[in-house]
Amino acid sequence: MVNVGIIGFGTVGTGTARILLQNREIIRRKSGLDINLKRIVDRDTERDRGLDLPEGILSARIEDILEDSDIDIVVELIGGIHPAREFILQALESDKHVVTANKALLATEGGEIFETARRKNLSLGFEAAVAGGIPIIKALREGLAPNNILSIYGIINGTSNYILTRMTGEGMGFSEALSEAQRLGYAEADPTFDIEGIDTAHKLTLLASLAFGIPLSYDKIYIEGISRITAQDIDFARELGYKIKLLAITKISNGKVEMRVHPTMIREDYLISKIDGVLNAVYILGDAVGETLYYGRGAGDMPTGSAVVSDILDIARGLRGGLETRRELDFIGSQNDIEVMEIGDVESMYYFRFSAIDRPGVLSRISGILGANNISISSVIQKGRRVGEAVPLVLLTHTARERDVRKAIEEIDRLDVVSEETMMIRVEGEGVQ
Amino acid sequence: MVNVGIIGFGTVGTGTARILLQNREIIRRKSGLDINLKRIVDRDTERDRGLDLPEGILSARIEDILEDSDIDIVVELIGGIHPAREFILQALESDKHVVTANKALLATEGGEIFETARRKNLSLGFEAAVAGGIPIIKALREGLAPNNILSIYGIINGTSNYILTRMTGEGMGFSEALSEAQRLGYAEADPTFDIEGIDTAHKLTLLASLAFGIPLSYDKIYIEGISRITAQDIDFARELGYKIKLLAITKISNGKVEMRVHPTMIREDYLISKIDGVLNAVYILGDAVGETLYYGRGAGDMPTGSAVVSDILDIARGLRGGLETRRELDFIGSQNDIEVMEIGDVESMYYFRFSAIDRPGVLSRISGILGANNISISSVIQKGRRVGEAVPLVLLTHTARERDVRKAIEEIDRLDVVSEETMMIRVEGEGVQ
Repeated sequence: MVNVGIIGFGTVGTGTARILLQNREIIRRKSGLDINLKRIVDRDTERDRGLDLPEGILSARIEDILEDSDIDIVVELIGGIHPAREFILQALESDKHVVTANKALLATEGGEIFETARRKNLSLGFEAAVAGGIPIIKALREGLAPNNILSIYGIINGTSNYILTRMTGEGMGFSEALSEAQRLGYAEADPTFDIEGIDTAHKLTLLASLAFGIPLSYDKIYIEGISRITAQDIDFARELGYKIKLLAITKISNGKVEMRVHPTMIREDYLISKIDGVLNAVYILGDAVGETLYYGRGAGDMPTGSAVVSDILDIARGLRGGLETRRELDFIGSQNDIEVMEIGDVESMYYFRFSAIDRPGVLSRISGILGANNISISSVIQKGRRVGEAVPLVLLTHTARERDVRKAIEEIDRLDVVSEETMMIRVEGEGVQ
Repeated sequence: MVNVGIIGFGTVGTGTARILLQNREIIRRKSGLDINLKRIVDRDTERDRGLDLPEGILSARIEDILEDSDIDIVVELIGGIHPAREFILQALESDKHVVTANKALLATEGGEIFETARRKNLSLGFEAAVAGGIPIIKALREGLAPNNILSIYGIINGTSNYILTRMTGEGMGFSEALSEAQRLGYAEADPTFDIEGIDTAHKLTLLASLAFGIPLSYDKIYIEGISRITAQDIDFARELGYKIKLLAITKISNGKVEMRVHPTMIREDYLISKIDGVLNAVYILGDAVGETLYYGRGAGDMPTGSAVVSDILDIARGLRGGLETRRELDFIGSQNDIEVMEIGDVESMYYFRFSAIDRPGVLSRISGILGANNISISSVIQKGRRVGEAVPLVLLTHTARERDVRKAIEEIDRLDVVSEETMMIRVEGEGVQ
């Protein structure tokens, strides 16, 4: 029997406890492992979580987990940096394996935590930190271990994907879709982490390190959120055969690792562009396996709890066999010599929406500046003739370099015939399906 | 260092060897495991596989693997029942772990093989037996282990999916699409296993036992292939908002396990209906995780090789830690008390295409027989009025019982106004996305 203690009895804590209690027998039959939920610690021991807990499990004292020598695995589900970091480090120092869903903590302070787990020869499971119930960490670390990973594209924030889906399907504006998401509980009162790409970047940090062995590099990710996307851009994208998704992208290009999070136009016939609502999907390209995609619920009590419990089972399996599971962490940070590419060096296709005064010669002036900056045009949409007034002028480019694009847009935005800041959205081509 | 011997140097054998040789260093860095390809045995030691093998690896003598006490893991990739079965059993009796991609063997004779592996406390990896490079066995056995699995829907035969995709996209007939698939190497000269659903049923056998713990039950699967599907049915399906896919289905209904392989109409806005060409996808519904889907290449040297090598790595990890990996096999066959449902008891929605003489009262006679058999109609398409001649009459039903449907069709096909055997295709509703 393996004893588990959960710190944090919120949404995911409740889901995890529910699975451990209700599915204990099927888990035992499937894996031969008997997992005993020995303790749950939370400041609030009163609130009804709709779960029948065995007597004496719930406590408000953190020592009841961290100082209980019977507890083999500590599950941290309080989120945030402090005191989650201190609890995890203390658990490891007390020779307890750790499972966490805390992507913000691992992405920003994971170095010290992984190092401590390594030193103590303990496991640290974080399947639940990326894409909720989808077993994506296991796929990347074990299922696809024979591969050189070439690229990963992920829709890994359900809130943003819900908002973009509603904007696309119902023609809503950003604010309206956000309000609806908040009303439905898909977005928090302060939605910054989700809509500005920060949560996505936390998860991308973990995926990139698992895929390429680079150190955790959250602060090197280029991040752009979805709040500036307009219904007009979504319409133009549709007209051009694309959908707009908030993508986490990491890939090897010219010997460096690209790491970026931004709204991205993806051809509407590609599978990943069909992932709608709060659902998540991760596309992984490996040199042997080719393209693979993993889809499911990226959040919620039971899906995330499923991922937490799968980590508990992996560790318990290791305990039974004496397996040194922590070896899997050694790859992260082992590839110190691979640099993260600066955003200026990234190559992509681009969508521009200029607000241009409808006057002869405007297209030629804009395309002249693009050409002078090595940017060539693949499509043009110009609509709504209103001579002398500003109308949207939409261009799609062939592959260009971000540094050139930024320089060109700066020049164009200074033209007297351009009345507003130009909208730019990156376009993914053949790399992602 | 872990020593591996491969039996069978065909397509998958070559892919596996290529990955082990070319990716040895990245595998070592990721997993800390050094996998040494010590021997490949094949009757044909002359043919050029386009691979630079280290001297002395290739042999025509099976003893060079089975009697080499240095070899820890034997990889069986010759396919077919004999002598694959004998080689695997002999390897296990010689205390070697086994990895195989042989779904036909495991589905039909797996009981003895799993039992031998259990008795000898050895691992038996078969990730490559289902859905090629997609790590679906790992997802089901480990990633989703916390779940009661509720249902699985799979497109797990690339040949059939390619043929149906071409029939759908290009309006080809079945024979034309099959010929093209053969020309392109996607279908074999004798395509029976692929187009008649047998290969799909082999794979479903393994998925159902992993999901529900039932004994391997290939002979209880209801199997129907795609050769009777016409371009006309694909057109009617499209008109009704559906695509036709060859699905492997297994789920728990009324305390029994459904296991069936047949052409299935799926709503075209569901993700699994968008899986085209030779690609595979498996949809799994778990009680905690909810819906998940796994997508990728179901065949080919390198994708399947990726799955083979991932099994090798799992076993090697176990060897390092002394892990009893074979415990994972214990679930298969542990749930002897769950019966497989007879096809007559299955409930589904149905598509019927009747060849009915265009004459007043025909629809009422047909719908009368359906009604008398507890089958209610949800949609009707009647096209091309040619009074006195046979025209297609298409009906979609609400949920009905297969036994009733068969009885009704038998009655209807005896009517003097019905000129040909009725076409029936099962329709999946809300269960699958």
